Amino acid sequence: MPFIKSRSFLHNFTAGSVAVAAAIACTAALGASSAMAQGLAPLAKELNPAQTALILIDFQYPFVNPDGANYRAVKKELEEKRLLDRTVELVKKARSLGVLVVHVTEGYTSDYREVDATNPGGFHRGQILRQAWKVGTKETSYFPPLMPGEGDKDLFPAPRNQISAFGGTGLNEILRSKGIKNVAVGGFTTDVCVYATVTNAFDLGYHVYALRDAMAGYFPEQSELMLKNTYPMWSKVISNDDWLAVLERGEATR
Amino acid sequence: MPFIKSRSFLHNFTAGSVAVAAAIACTAALGASSAMAQGLAPLAKELNPAQTALILIDFQYPFVNPDGANYRAVKKELEEKRLLDRTVELVKKARSLGVLVVHVTEGYTSDYREVDATNPGGFHRGQILRQAWKVGTKETSYFPPLMPGEGDKDLFPAPRNQISAFGGTGLNEILRSKGIKNVAVGGFTTDVCVYATVTNAFDLGYHVYALRDAMAGYFPEQSELMLKNTYPMWSKVISNDDWLAVLERGEATR
Amino acid sequence: MPFIKSRSFLHNFTAGSVAVAAAIACTAALGASSAMAQGLAPLAKELNPAQTALILIDFQYPFVNPDGANYRAVKKELEEKRLLDRTVELVKKARSLGVLVVHVTEGYTSDYREVDATNPGGFHRGQILRQAWKVGTKETSYFPPLMPGEGDKDLFPAPRNQISAFGGTGLNEILRSKGIKNVAVGGFTTDVCVYATVTNAFDLGYHVYALRDAMAGYFPEQSELMLKNTYPMWSKVISNDDWLAVLERGEATR
Amino acid sequence: MPFIKSRSFLHNFTAGSVAVAAAIACTAALGASSAMAQGLAPLAKELNPAQTALILIDFQYPFVNPDGANYRAVKKELEEKRLLDRTVELVKKARSLGVLVVHVTEGYTSDYREVDATNPGGFHRGQILRQAWKVGTKETSYFPPLMPGEGDKDLFPAPRNQISAFGGTGLNEILRSKGIKNVAVGGFTTDVCVYATVTNAFDLGYHVYALRDAMAGYFPEQSELMLKNTYPMWSKVISNDDWLAVLERGEATR
Repeated sequence: MPFIKSRSFLHNFTAGSVAVAAAIACTAALGASSAMAQGLAPLAKELNPAQTALILIDFQYPFVNPDGANYRAVKKELEEKRLLDRTVELVKKARSLGVLVVHVTEGYTSDYREVDATNPGGFHRGQILRQAWKVGTKETSYFPPLMPGEGDKDLFPAPRNQISAFGGTGLNEILRSKGIKNVAVGGFTTDVCVYATVTNAFDLGYHVYALRDAMAGYFPEQSELMLKNTYPMWSKVISNDDWLAVLERGEATR
Repeated sequence: MPFIKSRSFLHNFTAGSVAVAAAIACTAALGASSAMAQGLAPLAKELNPAQTALILIDFQYPFVNPDGANYRAVKKELEEKRLLDRTVELVKKARSLGVLVVHVTEGYTSDYREVDATNPGGFHRGQILRQAWKVGTKETSYFPPLMPGEGDKDLFPAPRNQISAFGGTGLNEILRSKGIKNVAVGGFTTDVCVYATVTNAFDLGYHVYALRDAMAGYFPEQSELMLKNTYPMWSKVISNDDWLAVLERGEATR
Repeated sequence: MPFIKSRSFLHNFTAGSVAVAAAIACTAALGASSAMAQGLAPLAKELNPAQTALILIDFQYPFVNPDGANYRAVKKELEEKRLLDRTVELVKKARSLGVLVVHVTEGYTSDYREVDATNPGGFHRGQILRQAWKVGTKETSYFPPLMPGEGDKDLFPAPRNQISAFGGTGLNEILRSKGIKNVAVGGFTTDVCVYATVTNAFDLGYHVYALRDAMAGYFPEQSELMLKNTYPMWSKVISNDDWLAVLERGEATR
Repeated sequence: MPFIKSRSFLHNFTAGSVAVAAAIACTAALGASSAMAQGLAPLAKELNPAQTALILIDFQYPFVNPDGANYRAVKKELEEKRLLDRTVELVKKARSLGVLVVHVTEGYTSDYREVDATNPGGFHRGQILRQAWKVGTKETSYFPPLMPGEGDKDLFPAPRNQISAFGGTGLNEILRSKGIKNVAVGGFTTDVCVYATVTNAFDLGYHVYALRDAMAGYFPEQSELMLKNTYPMWSKVISNDDWLAVLERGEATR
């Protein structure tokens, strides 16, 4: 009986040449006409709310309260976008459409025992040096207007110590078990935790919607460039209203 | 028998309010004097090569060959930094010190069956529309001067379809089983796959070294801002020479 | 402005004690009448083939060829169940229904550089001592009758070094991006890699179908007990025919 | 410039034959003499406590309290092994040696919103039907004698809804960031959650020690067979005393 080999994950280097389409690797999109020519399915124009989650990241005291330690960094954008009020409206509409609302928070034990103070990346070390974001303190308290009401089925994963909203929270497995295909992401900050969540969500296989009205950046110039250049590789950058409209279409046609 | 409620390790047992240092959440580092005052261990000044891996990302035809589809985007930086030659030197020195060298590549089957053409993030859809990065073609061929020699123990994980070098490659589990604590990262591009690898590596608990001489960006302005603003949260941004020096000190003092 | 403490989604907001049904934690199922009384949705009686994958584990020379090193251990079960022929039939029917067929294999580089010979668990050390399962050798060759034909869209993830079919293969992310909700699992062995795949798949949020006609155990007595006692916690143990019937119903009602 | 191909993760089926060592794939260990002959490093005879964690699974009311719903199933083994008292002693000694003690628990919100009642595997559905293991109730309360004292640095990850102690808890990333290489595992039950944790830990690259004195099985016959047949593939099955002795040697020789 002849047997056929499966191959090494440490390769196979035989030469060979093939024509390569001239193009860059990292642009986000080509024209719809090109896609049609290749027979690719069109992108969704409607979303099923039952397969969609809204992930809000770090709507906590330091970012949302004028006395918060990080408030000053995001103040301008909060005000210009009326970000907090509009996010509250967004969440109410999302809940009423049947979207799963997920509140992801950051937090540490009082002695930071779960993180590594010697990591050369400064994030956790900085939190320790500032004695910041301890669970059970005012600083990790959640933005009251976003708290779920009696009948709301929002999820509150345990406070996380990783950058990505999926890091160490079990969120990926919960969303999959609930049939969630699409995630919309907003919160703090466009250039740090929200971005890491978006790249992670793409890698995990989700369809990602980056809610630009619902996020604020730490470094405005970098955030703008990211929204323009790299967010579109992993997500559709979209306004609150347009995202809600896509959901309403999905709801109507079910 | 009295029973005590189960609780998260993120909840304070000893209640009480704690003063919160006024500070931003996302700055990378505070002064060493502040760290000493709090009794934090100092950051490492030497690295054990046996606990260190060098992760090279996408040193493949599109980026490293003048005829490659992405070459033009990185050409200026490749030339100014003498990036390719210096990376080859870096890898030789790293191997001789006992650092584990890992070559992470990107690649797809010829019909892209493993990715989702309908994802609203444009990355995979773009690769499909350009019919790019197919395994077994010239376009995914590896940069010959980086190929390991007879006795070298480099790793070549299977070509990946995710952004992060850890995505779907099993690399995290392999590195951990080999006792790797530190990872240095270089390659293509500073603002896309290298950055996603760095945030992912930090979340996975590694000490990350971002080799700025060994990486090129797709969008130069964004890449510069990222290296200045957010890379330091997750990594130490370092020159090839300084990184090698830290390893040599680690080797000498073992 | 009053602030509310952040809390886990696992904490009761509405305090109060709840009657606890006297029962064991690990039994697999209670009566359908009890479920109805609680308003639980019934279990699926049909599966959508487009949301279903068939995962075959280690149909490789050592298990499927009479000269294979592990053949003797599974010979009796292979023969009694006509396992190989029936799996080939199963795969053909699954393909024709539109089920995604995934062939997961085991394999190592020729010097086993990617695994840890000093792990006190004996699995990898045993493979090294026997110099077994090297990629590119007869021993890792795939069972020819299961090889996909020209138009088949089967997946062959890279050979893995972990127990679970999801370990280090990127399979979870691929399946999610393709909208797979249900996985059926068969192969080698009932008590080792198939079981680890089933527990892992449940934790990842899949609906799992354990194909008892398509799996053979290494230790027959243990395998029988597992199928009876613990498989039902994580999966529905089912015959090939019954699983195909559920798919056909799903196909018919779409 | 010649370019070399890297290969697809879907394929390459060229024939070839190579001698295969006659052996079974799944036995746990071969003789030490054979290992020496091949130049394999010997297995560790001592463990560094600073690189070691003790993971205790589900020491909660249902299993440890005579009134608990699952107590009867494990009562015989609890008594014969004096399991609870000896685990308390074990934990005290482990703490004093500097081992990281991790208490992993199970728990659900009061309406089980985070799990899927329609999964054909009966585990979660069973918990829902019994309205069992709700966070904040007596049933999920922790075994008081194991609670950490003032200066103890034990970890309490958030209650989990997955089988494996690593599932959705962030535990893997925390342990790795703390330099943990070895994990010892005990608790409930030998044939269910402890086993899934052990296979998962092996796949994640840990050196695993299965503490047979500190675990009890749900199905005694199956548990015995697992400890004899398959646990040794992923772990060293060891008594409390022998494990402590290996740690003490590690402590002494540092």
